[in-house]
Amino acid sequence: MHFGYDDRTEELRGQLNAFMDEFVYPAEPVFEQQLAEGDPWSPPPVVAELKAEARKRGLWNFFLPGEHGAGLTNLQYAPLAEITGRSPHLAPTAINCAAPDTGNMEVLSMFGSEQQRKQWLTPLLEGEIRSAFAMTEPDVASSDARNIATRIERDGGDYVINGKKWFISGAMNPHCRIFIVMGKTDPDGEPHRQQSMILVPRDTPGMTIKRGMHVFGYTDGDHGGHAEIEFDDVRVPAENLIGEEGGGFAVAQARLGPGRIHHCMRLIGMAERAIELMCKRAVSRTAFGKPIAQQGVVQDWIAESRVRVEQLRLLVLKTAWLMDTVGNQGAHTEIQSIKIATPIQVEWILDKAIQAHGAGGVSQDTPLAGLWAHARTLRLADGPDEVHKRSLARRELAKYPR
Amino acid sequence: MHFGYDDRTEELRGQLNAFMDEFVYPAEPVFEQQLAEGDPWSPPPVVAELKAEARKRGLWNFFLPGEHGAGLTNLQYAPLAEITGRSPHLAPTAINCAAPDTGNMEVLSMFGSEQQRKQWLTPLLEGEIRSAFAMTEPDVASSDARNIATRIERDGGDYVINGKKWFISGAMNPHCRIFIVMGKTDPDGEPHRQQSMILVPRDTPGMTIKRGMHVFGYTDGDHGGHAEIEFDDVRVPAENLIGEEGGGFAVAQARLGPGRIHHCMRLIGMAERAIELMCKRAVSRTAFGKPIAQQGVVQDWIAESRVRVEQLRLLVLKTAWLMDTVGNQGAHTEIQSIKIATPIQVEWILDKAIQAHGAGGVSQDTPLAGLWAHARTLRLADGPDEVHKRSLARRELAKYPR
Amino acid sequence: MHFGYDDRTEELRGQLNAFMDEFVYPAEPVFEQQLAEGDPWSPPPVVAELKAEARKRGLWNFFLPGEHGAGLTNLQYAPLAEITGRSPHLAPTAINCAAPDTGNMEVLSMFGSEQQRKQWLTPLLEGEIRSAFAMTEPDVASSDARNIATRIERDGGDYVINGKKWFISGAMNPHCRIFIVMGKTDPDGEPHRQQSMILVPRDTPGMTIKRGMHVFGYTDGDHGGHAEIEFDDVRVPAENLIGEEGGGFAVAQARLGPGRIHHCMRLIGMAERAIELMCKRAVSRTAFGKPIAQQGVVQDWIAESRVRVEQLRLLVLKTAWLMDTVGNQGAHTEIQSIKIATPIQVEWILDKAIQAHGAGGVSQDTPLAGLWAHARTLRLADGPDEVHKRSLARRELAKYPR
Amino acid sequence: MHFGYDDRTEELRGQLNAFMDEFVYPAEPVFEQQLAEGDPWSPPPVVAELKAEARKRGLWNFFLPGEHGAGLTNLQYAPLAEITGRSPHLAPTAINCAAPDTGNMEVLSMFGSEQQRKQWLTPLLEGEIRSAFAMTEPDVASSDARNIATRIERDGGDYVINGKKWFISGAMNPHCRIFIVMGKTDPDGEPHRQQSMILVPRDTPGMTIKRGMHVFGYTDGDHGGHAEIEFDDVRVPAENLIGEEGGGFAVAQARLGPGRIHHCMRLIGMAERAIELMCKRAVSRTAFGKPIAQQGVVQDWIAESRVRVEQLRLLVLKTAWLMDTVGNQGAHTEIQSIKIATPIQVEWILDKAIQAHGAGGVSQDTPLAGLWAHARTLRLADGPDEVHKRSLARRELAKYPR
Repeated sequence: MHFGYDDRTEELRGQLNAFMDEFVYPAEPVFEQQLAEGDPWSPPPVVAELKAEARKRGLWNFFLPGEHGAGLTNLQYAPLAEITGRSPHLAPTAINCAAPDTGNMEVLSMFGSEQQRKQWLTPLLEGEIRSAFAMTEPDVASSDARNIATRIERDGGDYVINGKKWFISGAMNPHCRIFIVMGKTDPDGEPHRQQSMILVPRDTPGMTIKRGMHVFGYTDGDHGGHAEIEFDDVRVPAENLIGEEGGGFAVAQARLGPGRIHHCMRLIGMAERAIELMCKRAVSRTAFGKPIAQQGVVQDWIAESRVRVEQLRLLVLKTAWLMDTVGNQGAHTEIQSIKIATPIQVEWILDKAIQAHGAGGVSQDTPLAGLWAHARTLRLADGPDEVHKRSLARRELAKYPR
Repeated sequence: MHFGYDDRTEELRGQLNAFMDEFVYPAEPVFEQQLAEGDPWSPPPVVAELKAEARKRGLWNFFLPGEHGAGLTNLQYAPLAEITGRSPHLAPTAINCAAPDTGNMEVLSMFGSEQQRKQWLTPLLEGEIRSAFAMTEPDVASSDARNIATRIERDGGDYVINGKKWFISGAMNPHCRIFIVMGKTDPDGEPHRQQSMILVPRDTPGMTIKRGMHVFGYTDGDHGGHAEIEFDDVRVPAENLIGEEGGGFAVAQARLGPGRIHHCMRLIGMAERAIELMCKRAVSRTAFGKPIAQQGVVQDWIAESRVRVEQLRLLVLKTAWLMDTVGNQGAHTEIQSIKIATPIQVEWILDKAIQAHGAGGVSQDTPLAGLWAHARTLRLADGPDEVHKRSLARRELAKYPR
Repeated sequence: MHFGYDDRTEELRGQLNAFMDEFVYPAEPVFEQQLAEGDPWSPPPVVAELKAEARKRGLWNFFLPGEHGAGLTNLQYAPLAEITGRSPHLAPTAINCAAPDTGNMEVLSMFGSEQQRKQWLTPLLEGEIRSAFAMTEPDVASSDARNIATRIERDGGDYVINGKKWFISGAMNPHCRIFIVMGKTDPDGEPHRQQSMILVPRDTPGMTIKRGMHVFGYTDGDHGGHAEIEFDDVRVPAENLIGEEGGGFAVAQARLGPGRIHHCMRLIGMAERAIELMCKRAVSRTAFGKPIAQQGVVQDWIAESRVRVEQLRLLVLKTAWLMDTVGNQGAHTEIQSIKIATPIQVEWILDKAIQAHGAGGVSQDTPLAGLWAHARTLRLADGPDEVHKRSLARRELAKYPR
Repeated sequence: MHFGYDDRTEELRGQLNAFMDEFVYPAEPVFEQQLAEGDPWSPPPVVAELKAEARKRGLWNFFLPGEHGAGLTNLQYAPLAEITGRSPHLAPTAINCAAPDTGNMEVLSMFGSEQQRKQWLTPLLEGEIRSAFAMTEPDVASSDARNIATRIERDGGDYVINGKKWFISGAMNPHCRIFIVMGKTDPDGEPHRQQSMILVPRDTPGMTIKRGMHVFGYTDGDHGGHAEIEFDDVRVPAENLIGEEGGGFAVAQARLGPGRIHHCMRLIGMAERAIELMCKRAVSRTAFGKPIAQQGVVQDWIAESRVRVEQLRLLVLKTAWLMDTVGNQGAHTEIQSIKIATPIQVEWILDKAIQAHGAGGVSQDTPLAGLWAHARTLRLADGPDEVHKRSLARRELAKYPR
């Protein structure tokens, strides 16, 4: 267990923090204003400016190990992702490390054919296009991929897709050009070999974006929203299949580990932002004749928040270190642990920061309410907490055979 | 402690439930659709239809005791308000029992001059206009009325108002014709005699509605939103003052008790709706080969929810009975108790109902996320929980003099 | 729902409170001292003195409705039981309302033969002897009576008992003269008709009291402890059977309802005692230059405690009223609800009162730690909370058939 | 942040685990039996046997860095202390790493004169005698050393001690030969220079052990209990002073850091023991026709426990690493954090393990109830959680000057 920040990490942290201070935080009010006035489903123009600046500075594709990306380990990326979590609407996109593109690039990088990589991975890595990942379905408990109902059927040189997806993040962004769709090619096969993933370009006939799903009152339009999509005899060439038929479950598993840890890293940053805002509010707001920083209950919130976030960060770092050293499979329990612990604890911290802000805390005047909605949703995304706890408990119990 | 439902209450409950079943619940999807398409700051047309139907049926002004209203006691009104809480965007407005009109009508009924009652109370009781209550301020802890910074200064036959308010619910609804504004007429007077309330008609020069405050992404546009308002030399005739100069604090106190219990009554109804939705989801959704109703964790949520809501209802009913028998002052501790207990417990129940729904739970496809945001906000409205706990504890401690 | 305190109740409350003030509270330190010095498994002598005084004053057998007892309703008894909960080692025994005698007297009163009532009920009602109820078994989940493993077999004019019981409260008190033992007379019968109850006098050959079970270090010796008992061919005459063969399950059900509500009533009193002690400590203990009563966190505990106990009391009173008006069966959900809610909430209140007392709070210098251990144990006694929640949830879910 | 286990640590872990398996766990039932039969204030004979065996194996004085002890770093000791926490009545004493001796040896090692070290440190290091640390007082909030009321007055060549202490662990063990007493030599001096520490041998005239304080129902007699002690003109030679006059506060601070982390390390081990027992119970106990390991609620407890204990361990390891690398002062926030987080979380885990065991969980048949009482008490020992949270919050807030 060696998970300090090495020199490379410290250097990048310095550069990233400088970028945050000089460009990202000042862009936040601009972003809010442009958002209120512009296209409801696209990132406001300031985001493109931030991307250009970040790229110029070499702050780019940190998430991707190996030759296609920045070549960082998970442990090196973790503290950088944390920093971007402090401004989650701007910073991850600015440095081309935003979900779901990150996971999609990983998939293409690991499993894509040369042609697929050239056509889709390259422009994604360049930040020229965006992408979506269509797995979740409204009618089944699709956190278990075996329940997927969407069909992908071979028909001559094509595959034909039929089914219904929802909460497909980013799909309504016109820059989102490519969809990775999960479906069943062999519904009667062995449970973990029934699924395949396939590439569906935007505007393919038969694919209808029906509406944007809300998250509490937010549309998340700047991220392209969360779409409900119908696939009605959508036909794509057979070479759009990613990897081999029946490989979808394995690809999904490979994709989820990094996705989960990235979310948790950023949540740590959100928590730090919340603590900072809570403290600033506490020292500046007066009630009953003294700053609320002197109220015992507020102090209790701050201390608890600090103690909780320290524990979460260590667990996330250990998980990153394990993924680097023994692989995602070996870090399975830890990945599940951070997925269970982080969203709900950060939600708690955000709740307290909101409460310290009074009515302003639930409004658009601080980022807190929006961050809260995001943290809350992560208790459900990629499978509800309860599913992960059940699975983790069963592994713990398996140590004690009757 | 006798707080069963008497015959009159049971009769009205029957009538109100019939109205809910026949008209309100079926109107919910219509409301959502009209909302998405229409004026962002007005109730959709279906609300006016519901009002007409409710009025025709005599389901009207239940909240107001005495001759001006339906003449019900708090104890009689409580179970009716609970029922309306099951569809809080539609039902309270439909029967003309929606905040902040209810509190404003109470104020006018108790403290308004004959002229004020004629001009504003009558059309409010008829449901012809809406109103707002401008007390909360962005820059001070205005849950303590002594902190109010807005100035109301006498100038000849007029009063001139300067200050800033926010979270003024309903203000952006064009039907909102009258504002009750709280400010200081005598900033150097005795702390509880510095404040006055005054009537400011919509479109009075100098009053600028700057923007709508959001609540977890929601604008609550159908209720006229929550406005930030600037008062810049707003001039109204002296007879617009409600009651006497320096009486504002007392009026605010008189207004808050019923306001708080109404909120809590409706929260009980929201909790019941949440339990109903959670159960329906649990019996119909399958995961791991069986309905999630058979999952122990889901059963735990349902049992806890039922046990908590039963306790809350009894405390609310006791409070209503006390207000009826010993007056709002005598029910002070209980009013504070329900304000402390109800929003946070109902928030918990809503959270579990959301979790049981998976991703759909945070979306617009169930009322749960919106109800959650409302319950969460009530932990801050009318003073954060912490202020009420502090006050209640001090009274408890005062029983034990050193 | 009418559950105020009627005149009879108020009169008895006055008398009981006077008895508490004059005799019970002053006896507490005497009790502690005698306990440290005397027989480890008997109530100290001061208890007998209190019993004599209580009886003289007519404060006796309040728990028992009907002609054999004081003839109070559950609703009348509830506030009296609450008062006794304030000094639970002394007061319930003093007025002959202590478990498990109460339940045993109910059983004998309802189901006992004339002979059984004469021999055992009469001296119990007189407070001359004590009794035990042997149901719980170490090796099975005996909160479900269908799991009972103890055998009761007919052999000529006798029954022969074999099995193992534990946590049999009061058994080691030499005044405990009679045991009601639950076992199976017909293990192959219909699940709810397999069990019978039978009377076993102390010192019947074959019954061995093996040891006293501890509860968080406490032996509860003043109550006769909690025994582990072996029954090895214990032979009693056939007329010792209570009611009919196969009636044991029904008798157990009849016994549990009142038992649970009595526990909850007393828990309310314990919570009130805890709040009182917490407040007294808070106003008298200084830290950081001021009484800890001025610490926001301590105020938060006090307010939460008050708000929670008010809700619990109302739910308990409603349950009592329901039992009086629609019977124990009709109050099933409410009895389960108070069993779920009361111990865990009172445990929370006691924990906070302990914390406010510092190290002294965990010691013998306040009653708090002992009360805590009792409340904690009630989350397990008569079936763990989880079993009751599961059952309650299933009834709630049954309202929504697929 | 490098806190893996190095080779030396792994080697010692192997040896210590072997010792636990071969000697300690098998000794637990022996210990319980000897305890029930022997001297109520001494460790049962089996403890001395374990000590002899441990010493023979070189498993000894791990806690003490530097030449006097085993020379381990905090980071090396942490995982060993964790292992001893699995059997906290036996293992820490067996390897001569039990509080309060550990802290006392540290004090003597760092601040003792040559004579003091020879007379007291040597036999303590040899495990020949035990010791006590007399700081806590009943009448003041003595977690703040500035409140200490005990007086230490110079009188010629002696010091004379007057005052009252309580919860002095180990004091009633006849093997406890030496007391380190904290008191004020200069009550009018600078607040942090008023206190001194002084050595008081057992049986010094004027020192009266009045009684043993209980912890819930436990006397902790095997550890020598927790004494209330009166010092009435207790006279010791001036050379018994530890360090210099006025140095008591600094010595106390130096002592507390390691003491706190040792407690937390052992708590981690207790949590692991609890999880193990909970799992074993879950797979072996049947209710409703299946092992309770299949109950969702039980799985939830197990998963939560695992996730929490992983976070706690990492925070404790980081703290140990910091103490080793930047010193106790530099690890101040982390020491406070583990003190805040560990006892309450481990208490939660123990509570769930108890609940999974049913009635047996609160009894002497598992170590769980005793461990619970210990964890609960650590929320108060060395200052209640609230004091530490307040202090930590103030440092966090100090980052944001107005």
